[in-house]
Amino acid sequence: MTRDLTIAEVRLTPILVADAPLLNTQGVHQPYTPRLIVEIVTADGITGLGETYGDAKYLEPARSLAKLLTGRSVMDVNGLFGIDLAVDASGVEGRTDAGGLRGVQSADKLRLSVLSAFEVACLDAQGKALGLPVHALLGGRLRDAVEYSAYLFYKWAGHPAGVPAEPDEWGAALDPAGVVEQARGLRERHGFGSFKLKGGVFPPDEEIAAVRALADAFPGHPLRLDPNGAWSVATSLEVARELGDVLEYLEDPTLGTPAMAEVAAGLRTAARSAPGGGGGGRRGSLPLATNMCVTTFGEIKEAFTRDAVQVVLCDHHYWGGLRNTQRLAAVCAAFGVGVSMHSNTHLGISLAAMTQVAATVPDLHHACDSHYPWQTEDVLTERTAFVDGRVAVSDAPGLGVELDRDELARLHRRWAEDDGSLRDRDDAAAMRTARPGWRTPVMPRW
Amino acid sequence: MTRDLTIAEVRLTPILVADAPLLNTQGVHQPYTPRLIVEIVTADGITGLGETYGDAKYLEPARSLAKLLTGRSVMDVNGLFGIDLAVDASGVEGRTDAGGLRGVQSADKLRLSVLSAFEVACLDAQGKALGLPVHALLGGRLRDAVEYSAYLFYKWAGHPAGVPAEPDEWGAALDPAGVVEQARGLRERHGFGSFKLKGGVFPPDEEIAAVRALADAFPGHPLRLDPNGAWSVATSLEVARELGDVLEYLEDPTLGTPAMAEVAAGLRTAARSAPGGGGGGRRGSLPLATNMCVTTFGEIKEAFTRDAVQVVLCDHHYWGGLRNTQRLAAVCAAFGVGVSMHSNTHLGISLAAMTQVAATVPDLHHACDSHYPWQTEDVLTERTAFVDGRVAVSDAPGLGVELDRDELARLHRRWAEDDGSLRDRDDAAAMRTARPGWRTPVMPRW
Ligand SMILES: [Mg+2]
Ligand SMILES: [Mg+2]
Repeated sequence: MTRDLTIAEVRLTPILVADAPLLNTQGVHQPYTPRLIVEIVTADGITGLGETYGDAKYLEPARSLAKLLTGRSVMDVNGLFGIDLAVDASGVEGRTDAGGLRGVQSADKLRLSVLSAFEVACLDAQGKALGLPVHALLGGRLRDAVEYSAYLFYKWAGHPAGVPAEPDEWGAALDPAGVVEQARGLRERHGFGSFKLKGGVFPPDEEIAAVRALADAFPGHPLRLDPNGAWSVATSLEVARELGDVLEYLEDPTLGTPAMAEVAAGLRTAARSAPGGGGGGRRGSLPLATNMCVTTFGEIKEAFTRDAVQVVLCDHHYWGGLRNTQRLAAVCAAFGVGVSMHSNTHLGISLAAMTQVAATVPDLHHACDSHYPWQTEDVLTERTAFVDGRVAVSDAPGLGVELDRDELARLHRRWAEDDGSLRDRDDAAAMRTARPGWRTPVMPRW
Repeated sequence: MTRDLTIAEVRLTPILVADAPLLNTQGVHQPYTPRLIVEIVTADGITGLGETYGDAKYLEPARSLAKLLTGRSVMDVNGLFGIDLAVDASGVEGRTDAGGLRGVQSADKLRLSVLSAFEVACLDAQGKALGLPVHALLGGRLRDAVEYSAYLFYKWAGHPAGVPAEPDEWGAALDPAGVVEQARGLRERHGFGSFKLKGGVFPPDEEIAAVRALADAFPGHPLRLDPNGAWSVATSLEVARELGDVLEYLEDPTLGTPAMAEVAAGLRTAARSAPGGGGGGRRGSLPLATNMCVTTFGEIKEAFTRDAVQVVLCDHHYWGGLRNTQRLAAVCAAFGVGVSMHSNTHLGISLAAMTQVAATVPDLHHACDSHYPWQTEDVLTERTAFVDGRVAVSDAPGLGVELDRDELARLHRRWAEDDGSLRDRDDAAAMRTARPGWRTPVMPRW
């Protein structure tokens, strides 16, 4: 074979993408969110695509890494993770991330969040060079479509007055009726069959009412609630008691493995003493899901030996790519823990990557999360469609997506022209624009 | 691309390969051991090779599976494991295997032992079709050679008189001097730097003396002792006390996770009360390794949550192939458990498979086991060499090995002409030939 899989060039393009005013317990999404687009070009001129967080703390190590890659083979993805890559985690180590929504930060997690985009880009390039879809490089797909859930948010109708922003067509959702209306709209447009509400925004009673309204509007459909750790153990158990009959799982009700383990133990006790014995209704005790207390391989042992979580929501960005996602799924399977996918604001490259790897995971029993329906902008020539809430698993070479270079350039200009205020995502700062004096809440809020 | 990766033909060739009179706690190796060679041929005429156990209980489901594969793609290795493959485990379910040396049998383990040969053959065919080594299909190699240990056995000079057998050149090894002589010979010929003694054959005092003799003869070299679960918890702790200063790990001293957990707990207690505090000598408590109590993904949770084992010895045959080996390594890494490789009697196809996957495992901190130096016969055109105890990781397409069809045919004729007495490995039956009235020992023996 005359094919040359050597990396000849790496291009990094930081961009700002429009985002809707979605609320969470830490604040609100800014009008634009930074993302980084990675292109890895082989000696044969084949380009592989990857995408990850675009904040400065990711961008800097990505630039260092890019310089180290020329001359390596795109086949050598295991080797990527052995590269000595300096990351500056001095400002973040041990704290939750800026969004506060994906657990405790560490140098290694930051490093993996960068490496993942390069791993995905290498896999995309491999697939294009070999004429194979990424899923085939991962052992082959086990399904022809991957199910996603509707990701519901409390939101404002628009970003604060006077702040440059793109409009969205969804209007406000600040009460049960608004949440149900949003759910109807997402279901109509994309066919979603399950619904996740991002909570931790209003006092628990209001969020319980919203989930109840969803249960009434969509009887029998799987529902989830995710307050991003905003509750105490006692509040978590109260909410679980109120909603246990309609929730598929409760996501990160409280912060940290010890507290999650207490909630899980409380739920098991409640299930055992429930009428029917050990039933807790239909299915034993209400499962707890997480993308906050189990976000690295190092956090697994404590959580799994304590039975603190029953579903891990993987995010290939911070778990370190698609092969690591498969590894995590294997660990979960060995411990009888479910696995599904977490999502932050992301574009179509990452949606394609999530779909390709999710198609290879044997025990994928929950619909994956994705912010993608909220993104009005993308860097692809063609937007990815949800049909009946599912994304078809592409059999085209690589990820099966194509870069729209004009759009990439436009979103990069927005980043280049930004005065720096939006280059690092800061949900609390965005909230302060609307509510001066807002401070990141002390947890548990309730 | 015009390449066609569809499976057009599957060939199964059961063979009998010469084996030396190696002793273990269950009996002795028969003069010939059954193996099954799997060939998967693509529509393009590319042939992938795999190898597994050849006993009837593996051969029958392999024949069923072979019939189901034509028309599938060799790329679809994940899908192999979803095939509804009937196995007859009625005679073996819940019992240890015929050799008694790789844990409790189950229908699923039997199924995986068959599937693994087909997975390896698919990966070999993929690699040949794509012009890539198997390790590249597994994410790329992290080292250019894989270290193996010298596998020492108590053995007779020859098989019992009157039994048809091939001679071997190693002579008897039935006492410390014989074991050391064997170790010297293996080290001279292959350069091995670490040594494993298969124990459980003689009373513990004799085996302790043999390991002490090895420690004297090869100071500083890692040593291991594996009695295949022949000891009680108390005996295990006694042996550990005697040998803790020279063993790299103690392998399956006793049977089953609860007993292994007791031994591990005892070793931790001893280490804490040792002079130096928590030291137990140089390195904390003596690690326990296993290829008997953790042999399936289902057995991991109990063993890891109880800290019963510190090293899992993977065997890609019964763990279900090379991707499952990577999955197991990921589970072990997440729990801080070491991983290395177990071996039964095997030929060069499996040695190549072991070497390719071992090259991709990040945390491979122990030399792998291999029976290969004991095998005087092989089905390859070229024997695989150990240099300084290491096998070079081939970068040739696929596994990098080539079938010797004449030799395959010769070894198959031996199988075809056998009256059935050797087609199912039975170490106890072989022992009865020499010692009429021998019965499989009741465990613990000591
Ligand atoms: Mg979450
Ligand atoms: Mg063993």
